[in-house]
Amino acid sequence: MNPFPPIPDPQAEGRSYSPDELDNALRRLGEQRYHVHHPFHRLLHAGELTKGQVQAWALNRYCYQAAIPRKDAALIARTDDPELRREWRRRLVDHDGDAPGDGGLARWLKLAEGLDLDVAAVRSQELALPATRFACEAYVRFVAERSLLEAVASSLTELFSPSIISQRVSGMLANYDFVSEATLAYFNARLTQAPRDADWALDYVKQHARTPETQTAAIRALKFKCDVLWAMLDALHHAYVAPGHVPPGAFEPEAA
Amino acid sequence: MNPFPPIPDPQAEGRSYSPDELDNALRRLGEQRYHVHHPFHRLLHAGELTKGQVQAWALNRYCYQAAIPRKDAALIARTDDPELRREWRRRLVDHDGDAPGDGGLARWLKLAEGLDLDVAAVRSQELALPATRFACEAYVRFVAERSLLEAVASSLTELFSPSIISQRVSGMLANYDFVSEATLAYFNARLTQAPRDADWALDYVKQHARTPETQTAAIRALKFKCDVLWAMLDALHHAYVAPGHVPPGAFEPEAA
Repeated sequence: MNPFPPIPDPQAEGRSYSPDELDNALRRLGEQRYHVHHPFHRLLHAGELTKGQVQAWALNRYCYQAAIPRKDAALIARTDDPELRREWRRRLVDHDGDAPGDGGLARWLKLAEGLDLDVAAVRSQELALPATRFACEAYVRFVAERSLLEAVASSLTELFSPSIISQRVSGMLANYDFVSEATLAYFNARLTQAPRDADWALDYVKQHARTPETQTAAIRALKFKCDVLWAMLDALHHAYVAPGHVPPGAFEPEAA
Repeated sequence: MNPFPPIPDPQAEGRSYSPDELDNALRRLGEQRYHVHHPFHRLLHAGELTKGQVQAWALNRYCYQAAIPRKDAALIARTDDPELRREWRRRLVDHDGDAPGDGGLARWLKLAEGLDLDVAAVRSQELALPATRFACEAYVRFVAERSLLEAVASSLTELFSPSIISQRVSGMLANYDFVSEATLAYFNARLTQAPRDADWALDYVKQHARTPETQTAAIRALKFKCDVLWAMLDALHHAYVAPGHVPPGAFEPEAA
């Protein structure tokens, strides 16, 4: 049996949730389906991966980092509301910074460099798993094509990121001699950025999702985003944990 | 070491291939990377899957079947050439037929029904792996957004489908008592449709890809399509061959 309970569905229930009920439904869904529960994450944090496997994680995850400013810009491009645009613009600043070498994307490349990856190869995304790219592009398209409410709601996985980040940083520092605090600097900034962004987005969703239909759409948008993150780890797990499953042309860790 | 050789790249070589060379390069790429080599296919044809695993394959593959007429329409929507539109319209007829119950998509649902799947659930795509949906949508987007030449070239995996279909039909009939000729009727039609379509598309690509740049683009389009098919089987393999990896909310085979 699939251990994950069905997602809450006010539309099927034929009633609106109160803002508090919606808040709870979104948090419960995220707690159940967020990729902190994925076996690959457990291996990563517990120090059970080789350096090559951690490299594969960082190289693939770069595709996600690179997609984020595009999906944020896609959201900004869709709204006439200056407040929403200003709020979301802060995310662009966080990821792209104000100068080369600045911002979250550059910090992710520092992480890749700290893991001795070829930064140009990481940046090209050529060695990433196709499944990683498909999942990241699905996220960009979702934000560009669904309702604005769903686009905002799909960002709510950040409600859960402080827990995964603190586990990750302490676990990786304790367990891998090839990882340093400088390498993981990306995550420090996220510890303050993510909750601030997530709180704002959650308020927005609670204000704008008032009917059963829009509430179900918001809940399903968060489910979709959890699916994106989960699928990325499934692809990593399949390709790099069990031997012999790296797809044609993707990154091959060097023999340890 | 990744056993798959790098793809041919006339652009990097700084020269145009002759039409015959391009033909060879495309066929070689397909022979190397087509999903006939994927371990999940070998298990499927060899009779080494349970009925639940074959159900998971059919249910997920339905998403691909359902995406095909949309990607074909996306291609038709992009060209002012009536000949290309007429040629590609034939594919719409093949997949959608002339009446309910007719055409390839309906035949795939017959296959699902023959495997005792709930047809409404298959059609809803709700239980498919997110990774399957991401890969299929990536294909639709590719055809809608890349050059027309790349859109046509991405269909060239059909050059290789007769081999996989004949292996599949004979292997599945010989090895699974829950599979009948009627269940597999979908594949009979494809044995004549696919080579006819592929020959036309290959001629088109050879006529229109004359520069190193466009030839490399065509080769990379076929690589992309091989990646789509491979990623779909990776996702199936990960979720349903090793136990314990079905992602949240996806199809769960009943215990055998």
